[in-house]
Amino acid sequence: MPLSADQLSEIEAQRAQSAPTRRATAEGMEAHLYTAYPVLDHGFVRVIDYMGDDLAITQAARVSYGKGTKSVTNDAGLIRYLMRHWHSTPFEMCEIKLHVKLPVFVARQWIRHRTANVNEYSARYSILDREFYIPAEDHLNAQSVVNNQGRGALLEGEEAARVLEILKADSNRCYDNYESMISDEGQSGLARELARMNLPANIYTQWYWKVDLHNLFHFLRLRADPHAQYEIRVYAEEICKIVADWVPHAYSAFEDYRMGGAQLSAKALDCVKRMIKGEIVTQESSGMSKGEWREFEGIIGLMST
Amino acid sequence: MPLSADQLSEIEAQRAQSAPTRRATAEGMEAHLYTAYPVLDHGFVRVIDYMGDDLAITQAARVSYGKGTKSVTNDAGLIRYLMRHWHSTPFEMCEIKLHVKLPVFVARQWIRHRTANVNEYSARYSILDREFYIPAEDHLNAQSVVNNQGRGALLEGEEAARVLEILKADSNRCYDNYESMISDEGQSGLARELARMNLPANIYTQWYWKVDLHNLFHFLRLRADPHAQYEIRVYAEEICKIVADWVPHAYSAFEDYRMGGAQLSAKALDCVKRMIKGEIVTQESSGMSKGEWREFEGIIGLMST
Amino acid sequence: MPLSADQLSEIEAQRAQSAPTRRATAEGMEAHLYTAYPVLDHGFVRVIDYMGDDLAITQAARVSYGKGTKSVTNDAGLIRYLMRHWHSTPFEMCEIKLHVKLPVFVARQWIRHRTANVNEYSARYSILDREFYIPAEDHLNAQSVVNNQGRGALLEGEEAARVLEILKADSNRCYDNYESMISDEGQSGLARELARMNLPANIYTQWYWKVDLHNLFHFLRLRADPHAQYEIRVYAEEICKIVADWVPHAYSAFEDYRMGGAQLSAKALDCVKRMIKGEIVTQESSGMSKGEWREFEGIIGLMST
Amino acid sequence: MPLSADQLSEIEAQRAQSAPTRRATAEGMEAHLYTAYPVLDHGFVRVIDYMGDDLAITQAARVSYGKGTKSVTNDAGLIRYLMRHWHSTPFEMCEIKLHVKLPVFVARQWIRHRTANVNEYSARYSILDREFYIPAEDHLNAQSVVNNQGRGALLEGEEAARVLEILKADSNRCYDNYESMISDEGQSGLARELARMNLPANIYTQWYWKVDLHNLFHFLRLRADPHAQYEIRVYAEEICKIVADWVPHAYSAFEDYRMGGAQLSAKALDCVKRMIKGEIVTQESSGMSKGEWREFEGIIGLMST
Repeated sequence: MPLSADQLSEIEAQRAQSAPTRRATAEGMEAHLYTAYPVLDHGFVRVIDYMGDDLAITQAARVSYGKGTKSVTNDAGLIRYLMRHWHSTPFEMCEIKLHVKLPVFVARQWIRHRTANVNEYSARYSILDREFYIPAEDHLNAQSVVNNQGRGALLEGEEAARVLEILKADSNRCYDNYESMISDEGQSGLARELARMNLPANIYTQWYWKVDLHNLFHFLRLRADPHAQYEIRVYAEEICKIVADWVPHAYSAFEDYRMGGAQLSAKALDCVKRMIKGEIVTQESSGMSKGEWREFEGIIGLMST
Repeated sequence: MPLSADQLSEIEAQRAQSAPTRRATAEGMEAHLYTAYPVLDHGFVRVIDYMGDDLAITQAARVSYGKGTKSVTNDAGLIRYLMRHWHSTPFEMCEIKLHVKLPVFVARQWIRHRTANVNEYSARYSILDREFYIPAEDHLNAQSVVNNQGRGALLEGEEAARVLEILKADSNRCYDNYESMISDEGQSGLARELARMNLPANIYTQWYWKVDLHNLFHFLRLRADPHAQYEIRVYAEEICKIVADWVPHAYSAFEDYRMGGAQLSAKALDCVKRMIKGEIVTQESSGMSKGEWREFEGIIGLMST
Repeated sequence: MPLSADQLSEIEAQRAQSAPTRRATAEGMEAHLYTAYPVLDHGFVRVIDYMGDDLAITQAARVSYGKGTKSVTNDAGLIRYLMRHWHSTPFEMCEIKLHVKLPVFVARQWIRHRTANVNEYSARYSILDREFYIPAEDHLNAQSVVNNQGRGALLEGEEAARVLEILKADSNRCYDNYESMISDEGQSGLARELARMNLPANIYTQWYWKVDLHNLFHFLRLRADPHAQYEIRVYAEEICKIVADWVPHAYSAFEDYRMGGAQLSAKALDCVKRMIKGEIVTQESSGMSKGEWREFEGIIGLMST
Repeated sequence: MPLSADQLSEIEAQRAQSAPTRRATAEGMEAHLYTAYPVLDHGFVRVIDYMGDDLAITQAARVSYGKGTKSVTNDAGLIRYLMRHWHSTPFEMCEIKLHVKLPVFVARQWIRHRTANVNEYSARYSILDREFYIPAEDHLNAQSVVNNQGRGALLEGEEAARVLEILKADSNRCYDNYESMISDEGQSGLARELARMNLPANIYTQWYWKVDLHNLFHFLRLRADPHAQYEIRVYAEEICKIVADWVPHAYSAFEDYRMGGAQLSAKALDCVKRMIKGEIVTQESSGMSKGEWREFEGIIGLMST
């Protein structure tokens, strides 16, 4: 992530500013503000602004539940209670604004999370930079042979080299042609809104993305999950670290109840009850399909024998 | 709005807190933070938190439009341009969190604005206070005789007095009975979630309401409009004053393009063109219905003759 | 639910209409269309329109996942797979429009589900009918002594009678006064938008409510849950019956994975694994708080000893 | 738009199906159902399903406004009234589901409209077809010299030929390399989720897109506007034709009040009033900036002299 001199000095200027505020302030977050954390080969995530902290969550909950919430002994306990019982609105009272630089094919997945605000760099107005995501060799995998959407083993030497060569060459050639088409030297110059169509999906774009904590947790649950595509997962993991410093109690509850937990179906719950009583349950006696049973074994931590 | 001693000391404590922050800070808004501005007889609006300022709007726009936006000479001009051309996403980059105390029938209108976050006081968990909205005499109007949803002239002496007497007596009787039903002295005590059904719609509730600036402007356009019901309009007007201090350039553009502007139909636009050329246009020659023409006259400032 | 003659003849007229369509048609749903199913003492739910059926869900999924989805042998299996893996968008491709008559305090809970479209009867324009929810004796409970928001035992004879008497008398008195305030006989007549504030929260309102199947399932999971307030739960249960006939495969998957299932935290999952291996786990050795452990026992079906 | 034999026979099968329904049925829409209307060189729009018709809009409005709405003499008049006064909820009661095939760079603009449901073809699961948008010569424009985001004059002969040659060659080379990277003949074969990053933004994707009529009108107002990029505008225009047959009264009101109308600022409104009175208003005396005045002249139809 080679930041330009302009960008670095902008970040420095932003980090140097300080003003007194009466607002709720999260010290853990102040330390992160504006710093660009590198992701992938040219991407980054940085916090531009935030609203609220752990106390803002319980403060909002206490408006709703009034004196009832005072029986919960402390804020951490109340936050755990709210998370466990799917009370989403108190978490919506915190908000974060991120500046993200990311490949277009990652942006296309990301934008599917609709409850957020976005300002993306416009290739109708402006010219994109020559920056493309080229996977590192340890993230260059074959198509999975068991999962239609997954990755299998790493590509080996010669095949990996060939793929990297292709990705680099096509990116550069497409960008050269993009530049030559929009150039107005000795020609009219193609409209930017048309020329951009020649750029492949590994080119980097950037945006401001603003979202509340409840919807951010939903995003993180899906995108920091091991089944998420690696290239979006690394962004989610970087954001997880930031959120852990911003709202430590809420993040800890999120880890316990969402990331580390599991949803059991009625059938799976019935099997668990029988197994706790000592019964040997098999796929055949479980009522589940083979696929469900395999996933159930993964959750419960059994090896099939 | 008699705030309790507890509330006043909470506000004092909140206003006394101050911490350095690297975030964008709006001085005009800092002055308002936590102060409860009275609305109606027992209601209030106060700012709990905010994110962003005028510069946050143009900063987001410049991410989108890149160097293109630099041709606009200054931030105020860029904000006007964005508002004029319905670029909504930069305004979504600012956020405000309000604490509002309001009658239930006002809350029922307010909540129809769906793109916002809400934590309302829960009458399932907690006991509502004995506070009811009783209109002042100069806002006690008759049903409009020309508009199905409007108000007409003020009620006069005896009728006004009778209405106020009814509202006060029914509020108090309903609340007395609410209290007596939930009391557990000498009886079991009705569940709160049931007892609340006896309370009329002028009882006060309260909530935290968080919304982005774009959606707040939409709310204000509809609710600060002269056609809005008085009891919600006074909240909108109070919020307008706060927003004017928070994001003065954006608010000024909002006033010019939204509040003070008007939407003309294709037919109305055609009439305007003809009228500017000196033609005398009447309802008959306008192509508009009588209702539309009447509204058109109101916009253009003509009196029919 | 005494429907008026007008309403009954409108329903008859709607049910009598029939036209050929090329659209996906769900026979189970056609049988329900327009019929008003009674809920509570004066409420009802009826289907006004719908879009899609079980096949519409898999059809949309196959657009997304292409040939990959063909390996799943049949539509029921694919729907189960989508539900299990939280693929929400295919379920959003079905839509339902309901006409619901419900008490105002139920409407206030219901409207908190924001991702839906609503047209509610307006008491600014029109006059509300004299119809109030008065609980049946077998749903007149005391406040729970263990749960701040719950109901405890049924109220007994004399107390129950007193409560019912209060609810009826206050409803009628408030409505009498509402009528007398808006009357224009011998007086101006108070504006409807003001007079409505005298009506208690058990008065009935009505609305059209349109929602997609994914968001409807979310609503049903929360509101058909045993912890939901009885007065909204009966609406959710009535809707469940309709949905079961509309999209039987999707509803069956919803029952298995959502209604009948359970979310386990990381800690709970760890306990389950240890218990399956034969370990005796207690609250003390579980890492959970007392409240969590009690809920965990409820899920796993253990009695503490 | 060469539809495959499979697609054509699927469309035939869909169009051949017919079943009686009690639902509201729009004859004008039934005629369109499933037919794929060509857009650009390989794209199309086709209606998969719809809910409601013009009457469904007024039916919902009458639920809200009760007897008040009966004073409006007919449904067309009521629809015009609702549109003029920004009553959005009755229009939300109609819904449409489209199947769209479109270039990725168009899809990226389209998806910014967040209040809609989408199932897109997944290039993680499935292999994209070799279909790229190559502009026709009469839509191959230079960058505008006056507008940062617009198009200027058509490119001339040699430059146009060179651009087309580049777009075709790069598309094909990138696709060849995509195919060769994912091939599992004699190699492992790169994961699809990675290989797709080599594909340029003019490749076609497809999706199901479901939206309510209010939000569709918002989309059409922005995207059927002359300032919208040509490649998305042609989709919007095709959808306009369909909507005009589906809900003719609503579409006619939309044309008059939204597409053909204009928003005047407070300053512009003031100028109009002065001009109607015969005053000569210039940019200098208007209070507007040069940019605003130029746009104002465009709306009012004046030529500056």
